[in-house]
Amino acid sequence: MEKNIVVIEGDGIGPEVTRQAVKVLNAVAEQFGHEFHYRYCLMGADAIDKTGNPLPDETIEACLNSDGILFGAIGHPKYDNDPSAKVRPEQGLLKLRKSLQLFANIRPVITYPSLQHLSPLKAQQLEGVDFIIFRELTSGIYFGKKELSQDGNRAADDCVYTREEIERIAHLAFQYAGKRRKKLTLVDKANVLETSRLWRKVVQEIALQYADVKVDFLFVDNAAMQIILNPKQFDVILTENMFGDIISDEASVISGSLGLLPSASVGTGVALFEPIHGSYPQAAGKDIANPLGCILSAAMLLDHFGLAKEAEAVRLGVEWTLINGFVTKDIDPINFYFTSTIGELVSDFV
Amino acid sequence: MEKNIVVIEGDGIGPEVTRQAVKVLNAVAEQFGHEFHYRYCLMGADAIDKTGNPLPDETIEACLNSDGILFGAIGHPKYDNDPSAKVRPEQGLLKLRKSLQLFANIRPVITYPSLQHLSPLKAQQLEGVDFIIFRELTSGIYFGKKELSQDGNRAADDCVYTREEIERIAHLAFQYAGKRRKKLTLVDKANVLETSRLWRKVVQEIALQYADVKVDFLFVDNAAMQIILNPKQFDVILTENMFGDIISDEASVISGSLGLLPSASVGTGVALFEPIHGSYPQAAGKDIANPLGCILSAAMLLDHFGLAKEAEAVRLGVEWTLINGFVTKDIDPINFYFTSTIGELVSDFV
Ligand SMILES: CC(C)[C@H](C(=O)O)[C@@H](O)C(=O)O
Ligand SMILES: CC(C)[C@H](C(=O)O)[C@@H](O)C(=O)O
Repeated sequence: MEKNIVVIEGDGIGPEVTRQAVKVLNAVAEQFGHEFHYRYCLMGADAIDKTGNPLPDETIEACLNSDGILFGAIGHPKYDNDPSAKVRPEQGLLKLRKSLQLFANIRPVITYPSLQHLSPLKAQQLEGVDFIIFRELTSGIYFGKKELSQDGNRAADDCVYTREEIERIAHLAFQYAGKRRKKLTLVDKANVLETSRLWRKVVQEIALQYADVKVDFLFVDNAAMQIILNPKQFDVILTENMFGDIISDEASVISGSLGLLPSASVGTGVALFEPIHGSYPQAAGKDIANPLGCILSAAMLLDHFGLAKEAEAVRLGVEWTLINGFVTKDIDPINFYFTSTIGELVSDFV
Repeated sequence: MEKNIVVIEGDGIGPEVTRQAVKVLNAVAEQFGHEFHYRYCLMGADAIDKTGNPLPDETIEACLNSDGILFGAIGHPKYDNDPSAKVRPEQGLLKLRKSLQLFANIRPVITYPSLQHLSPLKAQQLEGVDFIIFRELTSGIYFGKKELSQDGNRAADDCVYTREEIERIAHLAFQYAGKRRKKLTLVDKANVLETSRLWRKVVQEIALQYADVKVDFLFVDNAAMQIILNPKQFDVILTENMFGDIISDEASVISGSLGLLPSASVGTGVALFEPIHGSYPQAAGKDIANPLGCILSAAMLLDHFGLAKEAEAVRLGVEWTLINGFVTKDIDPINFYFTSTIGELVSDFV
């Protein structure tokens, strides 16, 4: 199989972790007789530095013409504390999501027995945790009209949702739920927000087409508690953009190893795969970042290509490193291995 | 001291828990020679059932003329799953917050050593946890314009903040921080939202007036992780309405005993005190709800009256019941005591 992959290294530790994922993809290509062609593109602070634009048109173009995108991380602190910065790295990612219509961010939440000791939660909370969060990614308050009054004393962000925007991701989530434990939980704030009431209404209607899936509804404040109190109750969680941003990061603490978690952003065409961790600039260039989140994102990319056996080989390689104590500094601050070493070990295993 | 207190029992377990708090306030009045007069008012589902209005004008009137408000809980499931319901209980609470300009919701997050075994978090996470969340309560997306298109296929909620709305609660939070460990964390989403950038700007400016308070900034997705990963890093958290709703409920799981947590909503005039738990309709009328959240809210009310000794007596009474195993079913499902018994024990202790 021949595939064209766009690689966006991005900011901070992005370049180091994507490099390991590419190493693993190359090992897969060799072992299983595929050809992967890579095209490197700019986005984020890196792109601003080099071109003045957080998302050059070339990058969008390349992505649209590719079979899949592997992405590292975005963001730089020099923009975060300057509320009046006109250009920000994150604009690149948001524009890419919109341009490619990546309307669903999919995040599996599972636990690794060999890493349970790292979780902030007690063991009884962790047993049997296995759910997926579907976060809407191209609408809501992220993309609504933004306003700042002339005198700078009044700011506004609009949150808007249409029926179609809810329907398309709801169908996807119901389909996943149907293939899993057949439970879907909508997280909203229908007791306060008009948009949430539309979500609830549309999901109630669509539910009729998926009679075998049990649906329930949780207010987001309650969901924020339940995810920690009793995470095993969930199978598929569906939610809007802003709530999804918050609760999917919250859920990532369950496993105790943020550095390991992958995600996929899918839509009508090409899909994007990225670790959920951020750009972590303090660690950049030190060869200490955990590359497994990015490597497991590459595994999701392989799945997306229909290469299930290959994806499985990568996942086994990852588990092999964990079980044998080949881990980065975030997992074991004393006996740790370098980013590049982990990448090699997984590649060798494949 | 003579005080006029409005009691709003509200919905679900609201009546039972406020009854115990009033019992305790009466014991305080007797022991310390005060006179508390109570006026009972309607709000929520209860008010809709009796008057068709979730917040009768009489209730607002009575609150404005009182020295403080004790409130139970709000909400009924029959409204939650009906996205087209025109009148909802929560509207009552939101309108009350707005009418009384209760712009700051204050939630202390502490842990009780005798209840540590109930926390979903490991012991090392809990040690030294002691922070306060200041949530803006009368603006943001809760109170922005809401729209539903004629055909019902498009919904919108506006999030708006003005400089003054941010300033008043920021000053309050900085003042608290100055009297505590001198650290204030603003939680926002300044990399995406215009309103968050205004928050960050205003807080950076106000910080100059509180040179002894160290300020830092966390994106809300990161905050949702940090609250679980390392809660002891926080002293005072300041945030806007919607983020505050989510992270303050999330933070409530730390102690392992939602039923125990009180809150105060304060503004320019009269203040309101309520447990953070909901109306929990499944438990209503069974005398099994935990009244300590409401009793500790009454203690905050006493503090607000300047009755520090009295408030302390109530808190000691609460701790005495916990240490001696006089707890409700949520804390010990096997050897439990009734709501009313706990209320009596705390009253007797005072
Ligand atoms: C970088 C930021 C704009 C982004 C978001 O909020 O969507 C990130 O937090 C994420 O979850 O992918
Ligand atoms: C009942 C509801 C409207 C309310 C809110 O969202 O503010 C509640 O969750 C709270 O936190 O007091």
